[in-house]
Amino acid sequence: MNEKLKITIFGGSGYGGSELLRILLFHPNAEIVLVTANEHAGKAVGEVHKNLFGLTDLRFSVAPDDLSTLDTDVAFFALPHGQALNLIPQLPANVKAIDLSGDFRINDADIFKEFYKLEHTALDLQKQFVYGLTETNCELVKAANYIANPGCFATATLLALAPMVKSGLLTGKIIVDAKTGSSGSGAKAAANTHHPQRMNSFYAYKPFTHQHVPEIEQHLKEVGEFTSDFVFMTHSLPVSRGIFASCYMETTVNLTNEDAQNIFKDFYKDAFFVRVVEGSPDINWVKTTNFCDLAAHSNGKQIAVFSALDNLVKGAAGQAVQNMNLMCGLEETTGLMLVGTNP
Amino acid sequence: MNEKLKITIFGGSGYGGSELLRILLFHPNAEIVLVTANEHAGKAVGEVHKNLFGLTDLRFSVAPDDLSTLDTDVAFFALPHGQALNLIPQLPANVKAIDLSGDFRINDADIFKEFYKLEHTALDLQKQFVYGLTETNCELVKAANYIANPGCFATATLLALAPMVKSGLLTGKIIVDAKTGSSGSGAKAAANTHHPQRMNSFYAYKPFTHQHVPEIEQHLKEVGEFTSDFVFMTHSLPVSRGIFASCYMETTVNLTNEDAQNIFKDFYKDAFFVRVVEGSPDINWVKTTNFCDLAAHSNGKQIAVFSALDNLVKGAAGQAVQNMNLMCGLEETTGLMLVGTNP
Amino acid sequence: MNEKLKITIFGGSGYGGSELLRILLFHPNAEIVLVTANEHAGKAVGEVHKNLFGLTDLRFSVAPDDLSTLDTDVAFFALPHGQALNLIPQLPANVKAIDLSGDFRINDADIFKEFYKLEHTALDLQKQFVYGLTETNCELVKAANYIANPGCFATATLLALAPMVKSGLLTGKIIVDAKTGSSGSGAKAAANTHHPQRMNSFYAYKPFTHQHVPEIEQHLKEVGEFTSDFVFMTHSLPVSRGIFASCYMETTVNLTNEDAQNIFKDFYKDAFFVRVVEGSPDINWVKTTNFCDLAAHSNGKQIAVFSALDNLVKGAAGQAVQNMNLMCGLEETTGLMLVGTNP
Amino acid sequence: MNEKLKITIFGGSGYGGSELLRILLFHPNAEIVLVTANEHAGKAVGEVHKNLFGLTDLRFSVAPDDLSTLDTDVAFFALPHGQALNLIPQLPANVKAIDLSGDFRINDADIFKEFYKLEHTALDLQKQFVYGLTETNCELVKAANYIANPGCFATATLLALAPMVKSGLLTGKIIVDAKTGSSGSGAKAAANTHHPQRMNSFYAYKPFTHQHVPEIEQHLKEVGEFTSDFVFMTHSLPVSRGIFASCYMETTVNLTNEDAQNIFKDFYKDAFFVRVVEGSPDINWVKTTNFCDLAAHSNGKQIAVFSALDNLVKGAAGQAVQNMNLMCGLEETTGLMLVGTNP
Repeated sequence: MNEKLKITIFGGSGYGGSELLRILLFHPNAEIVLVTANEHAGKAVGEVHKNLFGLTDLRFSVAPDDLSTLDTDVAFFALPHGQALNLIPQLPANVKAIDLSGDFRINDADIFKEFYKLEHTALDLQKQFVYGLTETNCELVKAANYIANPGCFATATLLALAPMVKSGLLTGKIIVDAKTGSSGSGAKAAANTHHPQRMNSFYAYKPFTHQHVPEIEQHLKEVGEFTSDFVFMTHSLPVSRGIFASCYMETTVNLTNEDAQNIFKDFYKDAFFVRVVEGSPDINWVKTTNFCDLAAHSNGKQIAVFSALDNLVKGAAGQAVQNMNLMCGLEETTGLMLVGTNP
Repeated sequence: MNEKLKITIFGGSGYGGSELLRILLFHPNAEIVLVTANEHAGKAVGEVHKNLFGLTDLRFSVAPDDLSTLDTDVAFFALPHGQALNLIPQLPANVKAIDLSGDFRINDADIFKEFYKLEHTALDLQKQFVYGLTETNCELVKAANYIANPGCFATATLLALAPMVKSGLLTGKIIVDAKTGSSGSGAKAAANTHHPQRMNSFYAYKPFTHQHVPEIEQHLKEVGEFTSDFVFMTHSLPVSRGIFASCYMETTVNLTNEDAQNIFKDFYKDAFFVRVVEGSPDINWVKTTNFCDLAAHSNGKQIAVFSALDNLVKGAAGQAVQNMNLMCGLEETTGLMLVGTNP
Repeated sequence: MNEKLKITIFGGSGYGGSELLRILLFHPNAEIVLVTANEHAGKAVGEVHKNLFGLTDLRFSVAPDDLSTLDTDVAFFALPHGQALNLIPQLPANVKAIDLSGDFRINDADIFKEFYKLEHTALDLQKQFVYGLTETNCELVKAANYIANPGCFATATLLALAPMVKSGLLTGKIIVDAKTGSSGSGAKAAANTHHPQRMNSFYAYKPFTHQHVPEIEQHLKEVGEFTSDFVFMTHSLPVSRGIFASCYMETTVNLTNEDAQNIFKDFYKDAFFVRVVEGSPDINWVKTTNFCDLAAHSNGKQIAVFSALDNLVKGAAGQAVQNMNLMCGLEETTGLMLVGTNP
Repeated sequence: MNEKLKITIFGGSGYGGSELLRILLFHPNAEIVLVTANEHAGKAVGEVHKNLFGLTDLRFSVAPDDLSTLDTDVAFFALPHGQALNLIPQLPANVKAIDLSGDFRINDADIFKEFYKLEHTALDLQKQFVYGLTETNCELVKAANYIANPGCFATATLLALAPMVKSGLLTGKIIVDAKTGSSGSGAKAAANTHHPQRMNSFYAYKPFTHQHVPEIEQHLKEVGEFTSDFVFMTHSLPVSRGIFASCYMETTVNLTNEDAQNIFKDFYKDAFFVRVVEGSPDINWVKTTNFCDLAAHSNGKQIAVFSALDNLVKGAAGQAVQNMNLMCGLEETTGLMLVGTNP
């Protein structure tokens, strides 16, 4: 590939945008031609994201009024829910789009409305979107023009559940106890991320009603026979980055620990960014990286699977670039060798 | 009561001992006559627990060789597992004992051995111990001479499960996803509490095998009809203090949220130290206090109960003093008005 | 004293108000008759400050329009700068007032205007205010009707500098490198207290221009001969509570470490809430308490004094109550035995 | 360059070794041929540094008994103080050595003994060492065979002081108030890095006696005319990574803020890894990177310079690789584009 892909990022000032910039500025096959951030238009990227100071001369722009003439190969949308819904239909046909919001993840207009409190105004276009959980949808992603990039909780949960659902061994309900770091709430200060309180805090929120539930259920039905009751509970962790999901299932037959681990090792044998680990994953080992670490344990028929990832990378910008790589015929790992640190 | 209770604390240098000292030094009906800490013998308490500097002239002593002449009314044991087992049988008959370790919690010698890797050498004495979950065992505690003070995870879990088990409405398995702060690992530095790593960490440990499982199951059978499968999973949180348990159950009948909350409000209507809250409890609001905060949610037949407490207070030293108060005919809250802070 | 003091708190919803409530609700000689918080008027105190849930039935009120008939013995003002300036002049003459803001700390109207960007509209009343650094101004406080409660940074700094200034041994400039926890920014969420960033953050702010500089200089001139150049620098720490000030001075004569410590031990021999410690103080040991811990070190003529306190207690609400106790003829420590914790 | 440099790392299991591995495993001109860690010999690198799991098949080895036949181009020593002293003299003459410990930083044997409590047994070899503060010693580093890599505190302090010392404008004493994250204490758990206490902690340590003082003073004399009294104070921050130094100086002439900033912009105009920023640097923006961020402020003749870096990268492993790059004729930034993150 001798020419670089021309990249546009809509919504460059939030944490999703911040991480897209961190990755794509150093991606060998990408060149960012436009990054929008209306409130910061004109400012240097390195002035807003001070980690990037000295590393780029790029500046934020206002979003163009007319997208139909946008000269770009790939457009990323890292905007609040409801905005990509209006923008992506305006893109020229040759532009590949990757949406990090929930706007195009849900097939069913009623369910979308129930969870996002919005009418879906682009249902035909939605049908062309591929759900970008790269590891389970690899071939569809390669052929896609439009990607609905999975939610952070959904990614952690689906990577833990998909091998078990695929195995056909499950019975009874599935319970997922999921926890997220504070960056999951976005870059704007708010009461629930006020440092004096949050640093000593752990609590549950949105019991039974988190908006990632329908995309998880929808995709599990694509992965295998899925009819289980599904209980999904979200909690807030006093760390900056990271999601940890503890997933409780039951199997129809007895499994040893090794059996359980092997189901995962087998399912992910070609997946560079999924690591099956001993004992427990730890968000410490995946923070700032595109890895999802998994471990499975069995107590006979009771199975626990633990999943850890960085909500902003494998749970957002990293997976988005992973999808871009596949859509554009690049090696999956290009630009994504984001090495974690100890400590 | 014109005379103060004479108090001995065995094991005053750990976090359990530290919190017993914080509470009992200011308890209006208590006077600490002896506090042991072999490695710190001779040192001022305020030199080891620097929070207490300027507040007491007490010094640590070596444990006496002969306990049979101990002149004390109440003896607290805040020692590593396996030590109270040898010491409590030596006490004079008139000394009330409260053990914060697991040594006397388990009725069944085989189960004790399986989880604690120790032969139980005082089985007859064990039969005289009352399990000191104050809210469920109030009357037995009042009459007791020996208290097995519940584990921190067990307290958080049992306070969340007892009302539901008692209600007779449960069916199917119970799953408890529990998380603890780093002080649960004790006062000695160790790899899993090394700050550079722990501060960004969240992970699971001891899957399916935590030693608090048997005391939880044993006490639930005392509370009501309990035959459920029970899955208990422990995780490490990057905070200093606090336990949060998310408990998943199923009922035979549909419950509204309000129904679920009312089960708890009713069960704990006389329990000063259990607060039924809206939404979710948060360890931030219970840290350093003797409160356990609970909230129940229902999604029809799927029930989630959240429980938060301070592992060193309601999960250890605070509950121990609460038990002492009842055993000695004092008001339950005496010396325990430990007011939390915002933030 | 058989009757309780009637207490009014203006501004009960911020962190200063939160801590006043925590202390005064359990103060044996105080009864809160009114606590204002316009945005929360009508709400239960325990709904806003969830640490107090179950501990009080008090509710927030709107501030009364007419203060001239306020039936209270002591009024605390925990309002943003500029509000007490208008309210305190309206109080009946028999009401003692303690202002936690900077409105009445500065004697010089020009300096006040320079640092607070406000015209001072109550200069005559200001002359009746006593600067409430309890340890240095004890006798004046006892006789005062109006207290300007010192700033948090000012308290930590002045307690470290006063004994040295008083000693008459200083020469050359004084440099104070001060650090505060995030609760110093108040209860409202803001960019600089956004958890995802703040938890890994340390930075300086307001170089050379912090508004506590003039009150420090003004009070040092009351304490002794003070003509030094004074450099004061503020930094932000990623903890919730605590101030740590490192104070660098030079003496005209050589001092040993012991000499330096003795200056402090002597100066504070009657001060219960100042502890002179070995090595270094640590905010961990003073958090949630009314203590200021100090340590002095000498390298010949170069002196370093370290000072640690809780910005919301000794640096605000705790010192305010300490002042109230003295003004009202109570024991200085009444209601202030707020025992710290380990950990 | 068609062949890769053969690299040996002595001491691969600590945090210095961890970061050397993170960087050198992905350095385009380096191949790690040996990494030692006696206690982990035989184990996979990715088992000890779990961030590297899946990224390398490298295993730890025991250190060879005989170094004289070591087949390597560059040897890094990330060992406790006192060990490189014995090992580096055994290396073949053609091996370039970079020592991250303090063993070869100090020219004066008496001072070395005073601060490191060790006899220096390789004084002749020490004379061949270049002090590897890359930005001030660039030309000497290029020609060096042996590098004494600066201490983390020394790097932060010297980068802040060197431009001012070089300017010739200083008068009077210099005071440096320095703060470090917990990873500065190394990978082994210890009381001062025990999470329950450290997370709420800030304290000073080693007042006036830190072992980085002599290397700072020694190098400032190489940079310019340096005769100032120098007060250096170290403190512990409750973050994992990062050093922040607040440096207080006085100039003989009045400087504006802009004058002060310009001294730094000019001095570092060719230094990629030093960024002169507005306001204050923040450890949040340099963590995991090789950048040192600086800001200078003036209040007339009182100057404050703030310096922030990652103690394990620019303060250790990153600077070591930066030195290797120069010693081996590579571009200074090769393998060091470690991009920070927001948040």
